[in-house]
Amino acid sequence: MKKKLLAECIGTFWLVLGGCGSAVLAAGIPDLGIGFLGVALAFGLTVLTGIYALGHISGGHFNPAVSVGLCIGGRFDISELPGYIISQIIGAILGACVIYIIASGVSGFSLSNGFAANGYGEHSPFGYDMTSALVCEFVMTFMFLIVILGATHKNASKGFAGLSIGLALTLIHLISIPITNTSVNPARSTSQALFVGGWAIEQLWLFWLAPIAGAILAGFMYRFITQDKA
Amino acid sequence: MKKKLLAECIGTFWLVLGGCGSAVLAAGIPDLGIGFLGVALAFGLTVLTGIYALGHISGGHFNPAVSVGLCIGGRFDISELPGYIISQIIGAILGACVIYIIASGVSGFSLSNGFAANGYGEHSPFGYDMTSALVCEFVMTFMFLIVILGATHKNASKGFAGLSIGLALTLIHLISIPITNTSVNPARSTSQALFVGGWAIEQLWLFWLAPIAGAILAGFMYRFITQDKA
Amino acid sequence: MKKKLLAECIGTFWLVLGGCGSAVLAAGIPDLGIGFLGVALAFGLTVLTGIYALGHISGGHFNPAVSVGLCIGGRFDISELPGYIISQIIGAILGACVIYIIASGVSGFSLSNGFAANGYGEHSPFGYDMTSALVCEFVMTFMFLIVILGATHKNASKGFAGLSIGLALTLIHLISIPITNTSVNPARSTSQALFVGGWAIEQLWLFWLAPIAGAILAGFMYRFITQDKA
Amino acid sequence: MKKKLLAECIGTFWLVLGGCGSAVLAAGIPDLGIGFLGVALAFGLTVLTGIYALGHISGGHFNPAVSVGLCIGGRFDISELPGYIISQIIGAILGACVIYIIASGVSGFSLSNGFAANGYGEHSPFGYDMTSALVCEFVMTFMFLIVILGATHKNASKGFAGLSIGLALTLIHLISIPITNTSVNPARSTSQALFVGGWAIEQLWLFWLAPIAGAILAGFMYRFITQDKA
Repeated sequence: MKKKLLAECIGTFWLVLGGCGSAVLAAGIPDLGIGFLGVALAFGLTVLTGIYALGHISGGHFNPAVSVGLCIGGRFDISELPGYIISQIIGAILGACVIYIIASGVSGFSLSNGFAANGYGEHSPFGYDMTSALVCEFVMTFMFLIVILGATHKNASKGFAGLSIGLALTLIHLISIPITNTSVNPARSTSQALFVGGWAIEQLWLFWLAPIAGAILAGFMYRFITQDKA
Repeated sequence: MKKKLLAECIGTFWLVLGGCGSAVLAAGIPDLGIGFLGVALAFGLTVLTGIYALGHISGGHFNPAVSVGLCIGGRFDISELPGYIISQIIGAILGACVIYIIASGVSGFSLSNGFAANGYGEHSPFGYDMTSALVCEFVMTFMFLIVILGATHKNASKGFAGLSIGLALTLIHLISIPITNTSVNPARSTSQALFVGGWAIEQLWLFWLAPIAGAILAGFMYRFITQDKA
Repeated sequence: MKKKLLAECIGTFWLVLGGCGSAVLAAGIPDLGIGFLGVALAFGLTVLTGIYALGHISGGHFNPAVSVGLCIGGRFDISELPGYIISQIIGAILGACVIYIIASGVSGFSLSNGFAANGYGEHSPFGYDMTSALVCEFVMTFMFLIVILGATHKNASKGFAGLSIGLALTLIHLISIPITNTSVNPARSTSQALFVGGWAIEQLWLFWLAPIAGAILAGFMYRFITQDKA
Repeated sequence: MKKKLLAECIGTFWLVLGGCGSAVLAAGIPDLGIGFLGVALAFGLTVLTGIYALGHISGGHFNPAVSVGLCIGGRFDISELPGYIISQIIGAILGACVIYIIASGVSGFSLSNGFAANGYGEHSPFGYDMTSALVCEFVMTFMFLIVILGATHKNASKGFAGLSIGLALTLIHLISIPITNTSVNPARSTSQALFVGGWAIEQLWLFWLAPIAGAILAGFMYRFITQDKA
């Protein structure tokens, strides 16, 4: 079992390092910067590459909401859930540490620029309110799990799950970075909030509640769709 | 049969939420915005991810013009067409509802910015006339169906259809967003027109007529090419 | 045989419509335009989608230099070469016609903006001289054929050829649009030169000579590499 | 054996020509330039296309750090290492030569713009210090090898290794171009340093040391994870 947890830890480390790291280090550079499009691509590629590299060891969740949704969808044993979630959070924090070490090696760096933490209201990148944030995180995670459950279904095209799931995360970021900086992943929100502190910790509840609620609904919904075989 | 219709509804919901949602929420942000390139990628990824997740349930059309073209091409039974089209329209409207709820959570939001509706003449993003719009939507949907019919042909590489079809929609948007905001999908045009009203409803006929005509021609053309076996 | 030629015609139509069309219609729009990155992606996706859709009919060349290189590499019968090349040129011209019809539906359109024709010296997008253009088109087409011959080799991963070849064309454009607007395809150069006339016709020789020479060298080189089995 | 070395030489030629070439020729053009996002995509596509084209001949390393990491991971025989590394360096230098020939065909070209060489401190694109550069190159190469070892593992999805590895290199560039111009590949650093001279040669040690150290750790780590089977 230990190797599964190590794989989840490394994969979530990669997700935070690549996704939040590209946002912190490369998004906002004038003219040459990668912008929200580049950050969206980076988040998706962490998951795409992580699934092909580590998915055959741990399933490649890298996200507590995904682990919960897979439980509800009947694809993952609830007894493994605590270990997975703890490993994911540890990996995320390690990823944030590496970003911090790299980012602080240039003059002018400050955590007050947000460190890619998730927020709503005055901490939403473009001022979207709490309702928008709740709806957005809920719906995006719901659809993320629909894609995950569907693309890993036994009738789905073999091998393409990693591609679909990674690019679904890219798509989700293309839509929703302006609303909340996009979470759909409580581990990723937690690691960045721990560094930023203050408001980011106070708003962290939403980025656990909404993604997990969306994932649970998707788990039930996908079972409802596919059980309707007769 | 019900599960097929639910899959089409969810897939078209995703297409509109991801494609039109990214256009409304993330395209035009100064410096960091995803631009037409990001919107093109988003539309394609909704279909790519939708096909891998739901294609094994419903075929993954998510578009009335695709369903019609597949009928003509001999791949889909006409008796299923009405249910599919109604489900697609319902899904599209639900997608537009979610965009509206999220987008209205920021001060300054207004449907008069277009809400990603399709248009021509003075409602074309860059002023292209009705003839350009008709030709563009007709030809783009024609080629979209050629790719769909070809990539799902029994001789085609197994598993790569979702990738090809999704990226074909990205390509179509890379070419034609400036002309009409790109439809090639009457359901996507209808949902956005219902929210915008007025001119968008008046111009909606073109975004049913041209895509479906292009799809019908492609259905006949592809059968003509592949029947020429002798 | 007719269906092969029709497939080559449609595929090259798509290559020009998508690649040159995105360049003419969507690249240069301020702020939201797709830029050279979007055009590079569009060219690649025309070939990626064309190969998955039509490759099982004609092989999916869509380019006279590719057909020549495949002859030299022992993958294509020289007796089919004239028909393929003629079909490719016809398809390219049809693609340019559709771009012209769409593009001329807006006030201010002019062919004097270049219509995505290839050029060198004062007609290079950024003033690169004839030597740079010759070297660039020669080397890029050489590597394009190395990828094509390699990715379609019997030992290569099944199914991934279309992905590799399409994305190789994207890569080639990412490097070389500023030099010549990127040809590596004499059919694509010919169609655009016929519309632009004058200088574009005078410089057209280079965009036949360099790509075909590069393709021939690659055909010999790849046979040299892979015959070295002992 | 000669054909393996030729394949490594051509592949590394392509990596430098495409990755550094796009950076030198196309990244910084105002408005239409491909930016860091385009360069990141270009680097990844050189490896993606190189692996599908040449991976069945040589394994598709194109990078001394990859060859070393694969040795440690038990996937590559150390007796082949010197030949591979020499071939990779020769290929990289040939790639830099072609970039130089093309780039010097326009007035105003100068090697003092950096020629995409890697650097830290005052030669980091945005002034990151030596510690940031060391950590960044070490961690990025570590994760690159984790992806490579994982995606080519016998339990991994067949055929998707080239896609995963290429896109992992894209992801790495999305994060780290602003820090060091991104190496993770001593051959790519060496070729550019030879052209730029001076500071680039003085700083070259870091771009051998950090990537190879990261690759070695990944080789041990991946064996540790996967041996934990009981």
